[in-house]
Amino acid sequence: MASAARGAGGRLGLGLGLRLWLPLAALLGTPALQVQTLRPESLLLVSTLDGSLHALSKQTGDLKWTLRDDPIIQGPTYVTETAFLSDPSDGSLYTLGTQKQQGLMKLPFTIPELVHASPCRSSDGVFYTGRKQDAWFVVDPESGETQMTLTTEGTSTPRLYIGRTQYTVTMQDPQAPGQRWNTTYRRYSAPPLDGSPGKYMSHLASCGMGLLLTVDPGSGAVLWTQDLGVPVMGIYTWHQDSLHQLPHLTLARDTLHFLALRWGHIRLPASRPQNIATPFSVLGIQLLMTLYIGKDDAGFYVSKALVHTGVALVPRGLTLASMDGPTTDEVTLQVSGEREGSPSTAVRYPSGSVALPSQWLLIGHHEPPPVLHTTMLRVHPTPGSRTAETRPSRSMQAPALLLEVSAKRAEGSLAGLTQWIER
Amino acid sequence: MASAARGAGGRLGLGLGLRLWLPLAALLGTPALQVQTLRPESLLLVSTLDGSLHALSKQTGDLKWTLRDDPIIQGPTYVTETAFLSDPSDGSLYTLGTQKQQGLMKLPFTIPELVHASPCRSSDGVFYTGRKQDAWFVVDPESGETQMTLTTEGTSTPRLYIGRTQYTVTMQDPQAPGQRWNTTYRRYSAPPLDGSPGKYMSHLASCGMGLLLTVDPGSGAVLWTQDLGVPVMGIYTWHQDSLHQLPHLTLARDTLHFLALRWGHIRLPASRPQNIATPFSVLGIQLLMTLYIGKDDAGFYVSKALVHTGVALVPRGLTLASMDGPTTDEVTLQVSGEREGSPSTAVRYPSGSVALPSQWLLIGHHEPPPVLHTTMLRVHPTPGSRTAETRPSRSMQAPALLLEVSAKRAEGSLAGLTQWIER
Repeated sequence: MASAARGAGGRLGLGLGLRLWLPLAALLGTPALQVQTLRPESLLLVSTLDGSLHALSKQTGDLKWTLRDDPIIQGPTYVTETAFLSDPSDGSLYTLGTQKQQGLMKLPFTIPELVHASPCRSSDGVFYTGRKQDAWFVVDPESGETQMTLTTEGTSTPRLYIGRTQYTVTMQDPQAPGQRWNTTYRRYSAPPLDGSPGKYMSHLASCGMGLLLTVDPGSGAVLWTQDLGVPVMGIYTWHQDSLHQLPHLTLARDTLHFLALRWGHIRLPASRPQNIATPFSVLGIQLLMTLYIGKDDAGFYVSKALVHTGVALVPRGLTLASMDGPTTDEVTLQVSGEREGSPSTAVRYPSGSVALPSQWLLIGHHEPPPVLHTTMLRVHPTPGSRTAETRPSRSMQAPALLLEVSAKRAEGSLAGLTQWIER
Repeated sequence: MASAARGAGGRLGLGLGLRLWLPLAALLGTPALQVQTLRPESLLLVSTLDGSLHALSKQTGDLKWTLRDDPIIQGPTYVTETAFLSDPSDGSLYTLGTQKQQGLMKLPFTIPELVHASPCRSSDGVFYTGRKQDAWFVVDPESGETQMTLTTEGTSTPRLYIGRTQYTVTMQDPQAPGQRWNTTYRRYSAPPLDGSPGKYMSHLASCGMGLLLTVDPGSGAVLWTQDLGVPVMGIYTWHQDSLHQLPHLTLARDTLHFLALRWGHIRLPASRPQNIATPFSVLGIQLLMTLYIGKDDAGFYVSKALVHTGVALVPRGLTLASMDGPTTDEVTLQVSGEREGSPSTAVRYPSGSVALPSQWLLIGHHEPPPVLHTTMLRVHPTPGSRTAETRPSRSMQAPALLLEVSAKRAEGSLAGLTQWIER
């Protein structure tokens, strides 16, 4: 399908010379005995925002096959004011208040957590309804063909058994019947790979576009680049018969460019300060974790992304104008059948400017937002467990809980729901 | 619908004289001002095995209305050998091994926990797929009428907002494609009522039949009895705008009868020894917690139930014959349109006898079973949470886990799955 490193070398000015590594690496990777049979362990599985799962060669980055699916995040596409945004990499939720003195805020729970806690009500009267639905895909690692039944019959080659869960949460305010906000988040069942990921990060993705870099964690040399066309959200490997997640870092496009140009190699530490608001230094360059807000066919999304000091930031507490902004040709409602690059790179806007109204203000890198003071009270054990029990397994009990939203904060956040609701 | 205390007085020889209490209690309960408007707090909501939710008067036990729904537990109804049984009061799972030296065993997780942990695989290769689906019912406390939309518009009287979740878990062995075992469990979202339930239990249910007794927790006098026709699985009350669960005890029919005859009042302590296998004494009578196995239109089910020493117990480790038993007229496949009493009371069998083959052996009171040595390994935080985070909420994270079944035990338990699978 897509060829390796499509457009990547040209945009970033790197990669072509470094691809000389590849033949040697490819030779080292596979024992001589049976070159025809693809070992599932030799694949790097990469999920992108549009819901595709791409199988790349770990050695060369070449695209082997792509599994198409629904987008990772699906929410309301009708946008006037934004109330809730999600991070497709983990389903975290953010809210953007329209009240004064309130900008982007992080909610202290994710979509999977909300679905787990549902059905529940928040203290401001909003009803939450959850839905979780699992699916298993059986994939031929060679061709990427899927079979819909779980069977090992008639197959001599190993199969990839990939579990995926779809979480849907619906919020509804009985004061405004007929209006509801719902969002769907899909993720693969892939625990992190055991063992330390090493001192330096191997996989780097660019923000708002589909570029993926794999670097040698020792030398920092770029082993290969691949442009998947759509932002990368998760990187996985096959290990001991199941899918495992590999860590990766997302960087601003300009930051990735800057680091590659300046150093010729990229060594980013695998572990960083716990507080994402604390900048950290790599070879004299300050890097800061930001929240990138992008836009996609499926709506707005959020990604944590590292930037260097050259990238403009939207300051904390920036609020949206409560009116619809004017529309601009070639900017507003830029809908096309094929996505080229990502919307944010196609739109040139002065990020951080408060002069631009409405949602275009959102797109770009934001300072890490504060966590909304929303507490969950009354976490109970499973109803019915009052009778004595020999071996309660507390960690596994599904809590039935009531969302208790601090009234002061809730006014501007969850109450904003009714204004941003899909009809 | 059903009249109060239908059949109950006759069967148990109690209740009629005690119903003199009721007019006085009814007068005390409601202030004189507005007798017409029913306060939701005055209702006792009782769920039964068939999925109905009955609203009774707390004061008199009179049935006000019934909300019909699907059965609490729905599993395979095709029975040759039993592999999994569930407790409708909390969704616990039990397995009945067909191997030698292995009888009824408790699994260390419930259906909601399995659904939460899915998609996952056990170490013996079985795939688990989960589904969770919430629903809200808006109920008129006066008439029991439900409306399907969440709205407060045009309603002057209070409404009951009742959340319910349906959990479905599917187990599938790829070695035996086309065969799968699945079960559905439904429960109301109702945290236990805060505060101590008092020293003595107020609500007592009978095992395998629909009798419910409400006693005065102080004197132990029976305030009212009500026969709902189908075994009681949960008791709820409306408190501070939401449904809360009340504790109740389930007793063997004969034990309830025995206690009522002997004492004329029933005072059972609200808290009992932690270890359910330990008998405890009430006024010189030894009571033991057992596991009652019953049969219903929807299949077998399990209930924890107290018995006195006069009740026959099925000993631990009893196994099923691996062949189909002979069928007996009026006993095997006793299917009728209307359920009368409960199946187990209609069938007279020598409980504890090993001479009777197949599933009829099951029905009755069993010694508390051991917990199957099945451990869940690798409880991970949410995939994708490798990037630093300001406020992780660990208790809420959906664990992605792999079931690791002790190989020795698994042979006779989960492997038995394929034999007992629904085609």
